[in-house]
Amino acid sequence: MTFPVVGMVGGGQLARMTHEAGIPLGIRFKLLSDAPQDSAAQVVRDVVVGDYRDLDTLRGFARGCDVITFDHEHVPTEHLRALEAEGIAVRPGPDALVHAQDKGVMRARLTELGVPCPRHRLVADPADVARFAAEVGGFPVVLKTVRGGYDGKGVWVVDSAAEAAATTAPFLAGVPVLAEEKVAFTRELAANVVRSPHGQAVAYPVVESVQVDGVCDTVIAPAPDLADELGLAAQQLALRIAKELGVVGHLAVELFETEDGRVLVNELAMRPHNSGHWTQDGAVTSQFANHVRAVLDLPLGDPRPRAPWTVMANVLGGDFPDMYPAYLHCMARDPRLKIHMYGKDVKPGRKVGHVNTYGDDLADVRERARHAADYLRGVITE
Amino acid sequence: MTFPVVGMVGGGQLARMTHEAGIPLGIRFKLLSDAPQDSAAQVVRDVVVGDYRDLDTLRGFARGCDVITFDHEHVPTEHLRALEAEGIAVRPGPDALVHAQDKGVMRARLTELGVPCPRHRLVADPADVARFAAEVGGFPVVLKTVRGGYDGKGVWVVDSAAEAAATTAPFLAGVPVLAEEKVAFTRELAANVVRSPHGQAVAYPVVESVQVDGVCDTVIAPAPDLADELGLAAQQLALRIAKELGVVGHLAVELFETEDGRVLVNELAMRPHNSGHWTQDGAVTSQFANHVRAVLDLPLGDPRPRAPWTVMANVLGGDFPDMYPAYLHCMARDPRLKIHMYGKDVKPGRKVGHVNTYGDDLADVRERARHAADYLRGVITE
Repeated sequence: MTFPVVGMVGGGQLARMTHEAGIPLGIRFKLLSDAPQDSAAQVVRDVVVGDYRDLDTLRGFARGCDVITFDHEHVPTEHLRALEAEGIAVRPGPDALVHAQDKGVMRARLTELGVPCPRHRLVADPADVARFAAEVGGFPVVLKTVRGGYDGKGVWVVDSAAEAAATTAPFLAGVPVLAEEKVAFTRELAANVVRSPHGQAVAYPVVESVQVDGVCDTVIAPAPDLADELGLAAQQLALRIAKELGVVGHLAVELFETEDGRVLVNELAMRPHNSGHWTQDGAVTSQFANHVRAVLDLPLGDPRPRAPWTVMANVLGGDFPDMYPAYLHCMARDPRLKIHMYGKDVKPGRKVGHVNTYGDDLADVRERARHAADYLRGVITE
Repeated sequence: MTFPVVGMVGGGQLARMTHEAGIPLGIRFKLLSDAPQDSAAQVVRDVVVGDYRDLDTLRGFARGCDVITFDHEHVPTEHLRALEAEGIAVRPGPDALVHAQDKGVMRARLTELGVPCPRHRLVADPADVARFAAEVGGFPVVLKTVRGGYDGKGVWVVDSAAEAAATTAPFLAGVPVLAEEKVAFTRELAANVVRSPHGQAVAYPVVESVQVDGVCDTVIAPAPDLADELGLAAQQLALRIAKELGVVGHLAVELFETEDGRVLVNELAMRPHNSGHWTQDGAVTSQFANHVRAVLDLPLGDPRPRAPWTVMANVLGGDFPDMYPAYLHCMARDPRLKIHMYGKDVKPGRKVGHVNTYGDDLADVRERARHAADYLRGVITE
């Protein structure tokens, strides 16, 4: 068979689920993983255990692949440029991916494109944070390390100059910090699109993403009560960003919806994304399958939903290290429940899986997802 | 994590798709495969390459598994009894599986249970075939080796005593041969059910299976124009067989529908089956996921269909060893097409994949599946 080999850097659950989606496509999947017991490494045949920060490791890994793509944003941009210069297909390429790696670069570029964003600028130290606060009408303001943050890590909301001074870790470490106005948003949305090298693109329905403590908790597809024009505008915005930035693969555009009916871009991710997990059971083609198709420049699959409502709820680790009894209970309670476990050890607050539910009645679909996620976490027992 | 390990014997596409279905369930999957490049071995982390006919190989493989199950029926029954006697969970167990391994045992048991079957008996030689033909009203009659047949292999329809004499290979080899009357059936159906050790069972909708040259070509779910009572009777028959034979896991009951509105049992398979591939995209829970749930004695998932019609068409190898260009074409033509490739080298007539389509309009759903399968095989080029 001359079917191609996709290499994915990073052994987390996104790689695990991308491999799962690639099996029916008949593509060969190779993994560069930090450790042999990582989530994806448990289920993939061809695993290279190595450090993605090492250029020679990346080079050796890429040698057996027709294209390399990513489970996370942490591969140094300069390494990706080196690989690309050597003729290796890197998708998304470094010129696109840098916008998902560096929030400063992302904000500058989106602003240049006229994409609505919260007011923002790089800040030098706590005194500069106070000046920025004055510029945007006062505290609170949001501080973000420009690289390396995720799931609420590397993000602080500060209410005063004193609190900004107390949040000194990033400044002391000399990491560039971006300050952003705290947007008075009504809710968070995500517009997910997939784009291929020859420019074909598909847009999934815009979803509502409910965050708890800075971590995605629940995703509702499509976003309830979203004005048609605003939903369409958000999809078009995401497609435009994908095109202007030259994204290949899945692009998640996390958005704030404001009281006056606008959307502002919060974050970008150029890989399968938590806000797209619902597509595994809720769309004709999942984000994972379309990511694989895109990086191989294959025609993309239909992104349309299969049910009126699909809800995804993340399963976080709780106080019970053994989730198996709860998992069994949830299967017995709801034979329609779609469980996705990542094979990860349970630690409090860690994403160890998610559940998808779908159906005609949003309240019922939400309750089923919510119950299963809470039961698996151990915060309810009936 | 204390999630269990399922070991599957056999590295074909059924194991490949069972692994795919097990990934979201978070179960660990181990494979005993004939060769490192077998269909399933390409995509599974833990592969033991070895001979399933060797008891010590099976023993060593089973040691790392909580339960063992099967991609095919060819493991010697006595080995399975030995493993079971040593305390290894074998599901389905040998007392059930022997009915899918040996057509003589199957016919005897089903007849004892009063399950409608074609008239049949073991035959000793070509002269005995002629006597059997006289008993059932004349030729043609069907001859089957009791063990080892599949996809039309090991099955002969003979029209005369002379032709029975010419079909001597099985007799000369000393293999027991079962003679069956050639049933004047209107079409073939399959009733697929899944049963767990504690006796929970689910029944999928009865499907129509269209055979070409003794190989499954197309499956239509549900079977069009099937009388409600007959569909229900077929499901109940399959559930009864599963219970009486003590089946654990997926049971496919292949049926003949007769002109006078009855069903007769043709074959049994105790593993995921070609007639259930439609469930991957057409049912709430696939046969593969339910097989895994059953062998682990987990609660079973909902078997109901997700669309009014789902059609599966097998992709057979044709004259073109490289299927990738055709695969790309099919994706471009039909973004809703669900392709399932097995990673196998293309050989004429070999099952190398299948496609699923679903929707509201049966004619359209059939045409889309048919077109894709024919295009991939290379028998049409537009």
